[in-house]
Formats: sequence, C-alpha cells, structure tokens
Amino acid sequence: MGQKGNLMAFRPDIRVLDATIRDGGLVNSFFFTDDFVKALYEANIKAGVDYMEFGYKASKDLFDVNAFGKWKFCEEADLRAIVGNNDSDLKIAVMADVGRTDYKRDIIDKKDSVIDLIRVATYINTIPAAIDMIEYCHAKGYETSVNIMAVSTANSKDVEQALEMLGQSSVDVIYLVDSYGSLYPEQVREYTEMYCAIAEKYGKKVGMHAHNNQQMAFANTVEAVAFGASYLDATMMGMGRGAGNCILEGLLGFLRNPRYNIAYVLKFIQTYMLDLKKQGLVWGYDIPYLLTGLLNRHPKAAIDRMKEQNTDYLGFYHDLWDREN
Amino acid sequence: MGQKGNLMAFRPDIRVLDATIRDGGLVNSFFFTDDFVKALYEANIKAGVDYMEFGYKASKDLFDVNAFGKWKFCEEADLRAIVGNNDSDLKIAVMADVGRTDYKRDIIDKKDSVIDLIRVATYINTIPAAIDMIEYCHAKGYETSVNIMAVSTANSKDVEQALEMLGQSSVDVIYLVDSYGSLYPEQVREYTEMYCAIAEKYGKKVGMHAHNNQQMAFANTVEAVAFGASYLDATMMGMGRGAGNCILEGLLGFLRNPRYNIAYVLKFIQTYMLDLKKQGLVWGYDIPYLLTGLLNRHPKAAIDRMKEQNTDYLGFYHDLWDREN
Repeated sequence: MGQKGNLMAFRPDIRVLDATIRDGGLVNSFFFTDDFVKALYEANIKAGVDYMEFGYKASKDLFDVNAFGKWKFCEEADLRAIVGNNDSDLKIAVMADVGRTDYKRDIIDKKDSVIDLIRVATYINTIPAAIDMIEYCHAKGYETSVNIMAVSTANSKDVEQALEMLGQSSVDVIYLVDSYGSLYPEQVREYTEMYCAIAEKYGKKVGMHAHNNQQMAFANTVEAVAFGASYLDATMMGMGRGAGNCILEGLLGFLRNPRYNIAYVLKFIQTYMLDLKKQGLVWGYDIPYLLTGLLNRHPKAAIDRMKEQNTDYLGFYHDLWDREN
Repeated sequence: MGQKGNLMAFRPDIRVLDATIRDGGLVNSFFFTDDFVKALYEANIKAGVDYMEFGYKASKDLFDVNAFGKWKFCEEADLRAIVGNNDSDLKIAVMADVGRTDYKRDIIDKKDSVIDLIRVATYINTIPAAIDMIEYCHAKGYETSVNIMAVSTANSKDVEQALEMLGQSSVDVIYLVDSYGSLYPEQVREYTEMYCAIAEKYGKKVGMHAHNNQQMAFANTVEAVAFGASYLDATMMGMGRGAGNCILEGLLGFLRNPRYNIAYVLKFIQTYMLDLKKQGLVWGYDIPYLLTGLLNRHPKAAIDRMKEQNTDYLGFYHDLWDREN
C-alpha cells in the first residue's frame, strides 16, 4: 500500500484527539480540577484539536464513586458544567469499556447529550460484545470508534477476523492500539496497512493510539499517519499511565494541517501541566517500561517498580523472565 | 530500495558503537572518573558492543587542557591506562573534528596505537578538508568514518555531491547525522536510501547518529537500520548533549543479533549512570528541545533555557521565530 502523502503537504482527513483527561486520568484517578478541564477544553479549541476525550463512561455499580474523580463517569451534567452546549468545532468523546459500562442505562440519546463520539474499548475476545455496544450507540445517534487493546499479544489471524467483523458493523473508526508500547515502527507500518486494507473495504477510518514504553509513541503515531491512519490520539506532555502517550505538542508540530496551532498547547502546558508534575504526579519513559515493552508485557509490574523507586533494572529484567519459566 | 531484513531475523553486518564518553562528555566536559570509563569498557565488552568511542582527539593548542577532562584529547597513554593493549573484540574509536585536530601531530601510526577507528566530523562546507584527514588516517592504518553534521540544514544536491566525493575517498563508513534532532522517520528513510545508494556503489557502509530532540532518536535509528544503515551509534541512557542520543539499552533490545546482551547494559546503568543523574548532570528530552528540533535549529538556545530552568515554552517559541524575522 505504501506511504500516503508526504511531509510538506497535509491530509485533510486527519483528526487529532486529545486524550489527556482519559489516559492521564489513569495517573491521578481522574481527580482533575474543573479549572484544569475547562482550560484544557479552551486550549484544545484554540489549538484546532478535533476531539477531546473527557474520560470514561464507567458503571457506578462496578466502580466506587468515592475512589475516582468525576471523569471516570462523565455524567452529562458534569460535561455541561465545562462545555455548556459546546458551541465550538471541538467534538466531545468518552470511552466506554466492554463489560464495565452500563450503556443501556448511561448512554442517552445523542440529541440530549453533548457527547459526539463513543469510543468502545475491547480486548480481542470480546469483539461481539463490543459490536453490540457500537450498534447501540450508533442507533442512539453517536459517532463510534473501537479500540482493540493489546493487539501485540493477539494472533494476526484473530486480529484480521476481528477487523472483518468490525468492518461489517456500524463503527466509524477502528483504532490500532499499542497497549504495551511494544511495537516498533516497522510493525506499526504492517499493522496499519492491515487495518487500512480492511477498513477501507468497508468505508471506515483507522486510528492510532500509542504508548511510550520504548520511546516510540510519537514515532509510531507519525508512522501510522504516513501509512494511512487518520485518527490520532495524543495527550499534553504525553500524560498517561506509566510511560504515557504520544505527545500532543510533538504531533501538532509534525502535522502540516493549517488548522492546528501548537502555541496554545505550549501555553496550556506551561500554565497547567507543570503544576501536575510539581504536585508529584509521575508519568513518562523510564527503563522499567522499556523492559515490559521489549518483552511485550503489560506495564503493571513496571509501574509498581517505579512507585517503589526500585532502580534494580537487571533484577527486574530477571524477574520478567522468571515469571514465565 | 525498500526495507532490508525484518524484525525476527538479524543482519550480521550490524555494528553498534557506544558513544557515551564522547557525546556524554559534552554534558560534563569529559570529566568522567577512570573507574567509570573502565567499567563502561568492560560492560561494552560483555554486552557485545562493537566499538566504544572514548572521546575527541582535540588539539591542545586550540582547547584549554584545564577546562576539559582527558577524554577531550584521548592521549594514547590515557587510553592504555584503561584498556591496556585492548585484548578484546571491542574496537576503540575516537572523534576528530575538521580544523580542531592537529592530526599530523596527534594521530600516530596505527601499529603504535590501541585506537582502531578515527571518526572524522565535518560540516558540509569542509568535506575536502575531511577527505584530507581521512586519507591521512587511512594511510596510517586506521579504519575511518565520517560524520557529515547538520545535513538537515544542507541542500540535498550538496549532500549528494559530498557523498560522491566521500565515496571516492578511502573512508569506510559514512554517517547520517541528525545533529538537531529534527528529522522524522520518513526523512530518515529517504536520507538512508540516498546515503546507501551512493555508499554501496563505492563499497562503503552507512551509519546513523541520532539525537532525541523530538523523541525520535531511537525510532530514527531503527528506521535507518531497516533501510540499510549498519553502523549504529547509541549511548547509555541516551546520555549526550541536550536531548541526548539513541538509547543503547533500547537498541540492544531491538537488535536480534545473538552477540548483543542487554543485561550488562542494565547493570552498568543502575551501577554507574544513575550516579551521574544524582550528581546533577542533566540530559534527555524536554520541550525546549522539541521546539529547536521542530524548527531545525541548533539546540544551543534550548540548552540555555534548560540551564535557566525557564519553562516559558511559548515565549521560547516566539523567540525562535523572532530571531529570523
């Protein structure tokens, strides 16, 4: 299929999604201040960002409301307290996990909601349940996307079959998700070509959601763009669980689309993001993440090591080996 | 030309060069302890690294010997104090800048030196002087390589002509050098193909030296490998001026060549590199570097901002624009 477009031109089909609150919320259990979220909303509008993901639509039956900030649940009233009726070009997104969202109760008709896009997150083994959610949300009037998580641990044949099933669903965008930050650019090219070939057959778009475990999140995102992905996730300063995500400030600098303006992102970062760092929130690349990425494992063990400030990297490497011997 | 090899296989022509002392020396003015350098030498041998660059062969007439540690000058006796006669498979490299090395005095016959490889660093406008140095060192019996610095600011036609001139010289390896960390992977692919096409015509190898200003050093290095480069520079924890270099720990994890062993790199990092951080040495990605990389400028201004701990990123962005208006 080969590369699409080149650096000096731009692809008008590109859409950038800011996932700072949703993926960054995994760092601080979604306890962002209203001031922060409102300023982020305004910065994204000014920067020309296309979608802002406000958090999860998690079931309050399954999660303790006292243990999380409100963006774990994204109630309509909380969204409207920030965006009003959202009289802007920025679209509002929320994530809904398969099996952890009471969608028939909590996802209301689109005409009554400021939400534009429901992002369904699924593992490869729950694709049929994801499709049920997609069809429900689509019928309610929403745009929908699907994140197939942890594809780096799935069999390619299974991924291909999942893509065919999703192709035949009502979903608008199918995301390549490098949950473990384990993919190298050449693998991203191969996956993107596979995703695009099937998605295009059915008139769908392809997205990219990268993690920075091996310092590849930004690079893998620009590779996915070059090979056909058009929906691109990023966060302010790469804020996200563990090693974090693709840096929004890098991505907007890379994209040549005239509607994006990095200046508002820089202003937001220096005014708001540095405070989060000062408060002690920790995210971003470090060697334990490199090792879980390299071995294609969930970063949980690396996150624990980081919390313990355990710098015995060799011991951790041994430990990762020994778990499965 | 397309991709060479794939992830599961390995290319026996790959050579890894550890540039920690040389590029990292730009962080601490080459004041490494003998203990550190000796341990690094031993770690590189154990890890299967192919070359270790000990520093510069700078002229003592042009640089104040009191302002720099000994690895700015790499005298034969200092090298031998670490490596003896270097009875190992690890080869010894030093860098020699065009116009700042008194090579006819300081580069002795290979038979009297433990140095194996002389790396000539040049800008595009001093290629003839670089070729004089290369021919001199080649005649003395050394392997030679050439780093054409800052190609991202040079005209492609000039680069092509430089490559043709170098192709006809005695140089063994021609390096693609992303001095400003401004290249994206697709540009690295294009440059690598251009370098390889000319280098192969003359039986030369191509190398990659990346900087991490835009979080692309490791990604760009693996891209260069995939498209034909075989000499790869990296440093422990990416230590190097400003945003630093390609991470050696990442590169050895990526490469499938059985002679490399990441475990010894991890052990060295936790035992020695973390101490440098604790002592207050600063290197690695930060937003000011992203901005100089994005605008294809030397990172000097970003390094100054970092030293001042100035986090007015937007002001810096304005400043970079205004300099040339």
